[in-house]
Amino acid sequence: MATPTEFSRLMPHPIIQAPMVGVSTPALAAAVSNAGGLGSIGLGASTPAQADELIRETRALTSQPFNVNLFCHRPAVPDAAVEQAWLEFLRPRFEEFDTEPPGLLELPYPSFVESPDMLELLLERRPAVVSLHFGLPEQRWIDRLKAAGIVLLATATNLAEARMIEEAGIDAVVAQGREAGGHSGVFDPVAGEPELGTFPLLRLLAEQLRIPVVAAGGIMDGRGIRAAKALGACAVQMGTAFILCPESAADATYRKLLAKAQPLTTRLTDVISGRPARGIVDRWWTEVDVTHAPALPDYPIAYAAGKALKAAARSAGNQGFDAFWAGQGADLARALPAAELVRELVRESEVTP
Amino acid sequence: MATPTEFSRLMPHPIIQAPMVGVSTPALAAAVSNAGGLGSIGLGASTPAQADELIRETRALTSQPFNVNLFCHRPAVPDAAVEQAWLEFLRPRFEEFDTEPPGLLELPYPSFVESPDMLELLLERRPAVVSLHFGLPEQRWIDRLKAAGIVLLATATNLAEARMIEEAGIDAVVAQGREAGGHSGVFDPVAGEPELGTFPLLRLLAEQLRIPVVAAGGIMDGRGIRAAKALGACAVQMGTAFILCPESAADATYRKLLAKAQPLTTRLTDVISGRPARGIVDRWWTEVDVTHAPALPDYPIAYAAGKALKAAARSAGNQGFDAFWAGQGADLARALPAAELVRELVRESEVTP
Repeated sequence: MATPTEFSRLMPHPIIQAPMVGVSTPALAAAVSNAGGLGSIGLGASTPAQADELIRETRALTSQPFNVNLFCHRPAVPDAAVEQAWLEFLRPRFEEFDTEPPGLLELPYPSFVESPDMLELLLERRPAVVSLHFGLPEQRWIDRLKAAGIVLLATATNLAEARMIEEAGIDAVVAQGREAGGHSGVFDPVAGEPELGTFPLLRLLAEQLRIPVVAAGGIMDGRGIRAAKALGACAVQMGTAFILCPESAADATYRKLLAKAQPLTTRLTDVISGRPARGIVDRWWTEVDVTHAPALPDYPIAYAAGKALKAAARSAGNQGFDAFWAGQGADLARALPAAELVRELVRESEVTP
Repeated sequence: MATPTEFSRLMPHPIIQAPMVGVSTPALAAAVSNAGGLGSIGLGASTPAQADELIRETRALTSQPFNVNLFCHRPAVPDAAVEQAWLEFLRPRFEEFDTEPPGLLELPYPSFVESPDMLELLLERRPAVVSLHFGLPEQRWIDRLKAAGIVLLATATNLAEARMIEEAGIDAVVAQGREAGGHSGVFDPVAGEPELGTFPLLRLLAEQLRIPVVAAGGIMDGRGIRAAKALGACAVQMGTAFILCPESAADATYRKLLAKAQPLTTRLTDVISGRPARGIVDRWWTEVDVTHAPALPDYPIAYAAGKALKAAARSAGNQGFDAFWAGQGADLARALPAAELVRELVRESEVTP
């Protein structure tokens, strides 16, 4: 178990930049770590070779600790009939862009829990922190990572998940409220979508666990950091707040959407990837996430269809099927270089209430 | 517009006990106001004569300011065919308790916006504070209430509603996050269920409005109060936290549920009343709130069916169709006399973070 002191050695400022596959970059992670926060890179969709390269790139930009994130979902169960029906359901949308759905859906990436090569890579490269999303690997893997001196974090969306994390010897739990952008870390999405908001989830976990709790979901500024600490968090994890940083990989459309003045509507949907994730409402939410839709392929098999339709639309110059992940605090996102944003967050959080 | 100073004259401690029809009582409201918070009674389901009596009873118990709450939903639109189909859908459940559904659904109560007698009563009795839920009455009514020296509050679940409230000259807005127990104050439930969690809603409203913001949803203790203040709230409104007070009207089953150690599952459903409301999951959620259910009668006409089925089940000694409203912080509810709870909340909120 990491003590708050060990935590503060990892990051002078209690601010973790959330790993966001497709958005976070070695440059973003390094800038945050160099500014005294904890930068993160997402390795969930990477091969071990790609992961190795991302770790190298980040290390070239910072000598400070950073976090690498892995997806620990239950390995996907293929079902050809379900996948075919899903592709047929999406067919009219592919045809709108003068193309056909793919003939079959290939698994975009395996789970970390079935990737011993990725485990060996982590044991060899020893990033300071490894965070786990969607569940936990087997205990022996956790023990080996800990024995290698790696600090472990894992996401929980309710008390039952948090207790499993604590019992597995993970150093700290990331309490991810329903407001959070991107994929919910819920262990078993079939049992129900994440329900608990950041406020009550954080309060409950801080009250009931002995390990430190990191707050995630809807935190956008120093006042949010102060509030999270008041509720018992030792640190915060912020994702949406970092999307507009020049170091992120967000494209122009994504940035324009986030920067606009109107209130943004974000909702959860599972139709893009097969797991519930929150983003800015576009055609996925309005046209695909409908009650008469057929059964979804398993995560992340459904994501192969999601990515194919996004690519088809983009080929036609259309971004109506992009996945612009964002949390409920999106309206408060600021376009600042990451180091400046971290400094501003620290300044805001230190003002006397 | 009420200044924070005017607010603190109303209540030395920034704690509003939420109005909860069926739970809050004159004794509860008076105990909270006498302890330096702001007690509330719910008049939304009362006739003017009943409301008058509740105000009298509360005044007999406290000389301090208190709040009375009114429902400002769009007046219900009856639809005999929809109502009949709904009753037929519920028929097997009535038959389980050896009874029949009612022949037709009578409106349980009108909206405040169509009740000029209630307006006249308020202007005559002049409670210190009137809070409005589900929307706003016409501007002339608001102006008359203000001219009578009554401080006005209104609930918002998003920025658009909050702006309407501010523009109508309401003194303060209650930012009600999705975590809140009981009925969401969302103005137009057809346009979508409340989505924003307390954390981002509060931050957004405090940032964008000029009038004071009261935080509601998932706040259960002094740490929650500190967090709400950090996010920009001038006060908090707490409902679930007061249900276990001996002064509340909660029955033994309700108390037993809330007091139990297991994590409680609360969800939103609109099948009980016709509007989304959060409570402890029972047969309404698992058996009635299903995808193949027919169209719901308008609020609160659906509530007549909800109350009839609850009564039928209770006659058979069964509480499976009760509505145990509760917010997501329910696990942290404490059974303390209201005055003691207010003192404890104040003490907790004043501890240095």
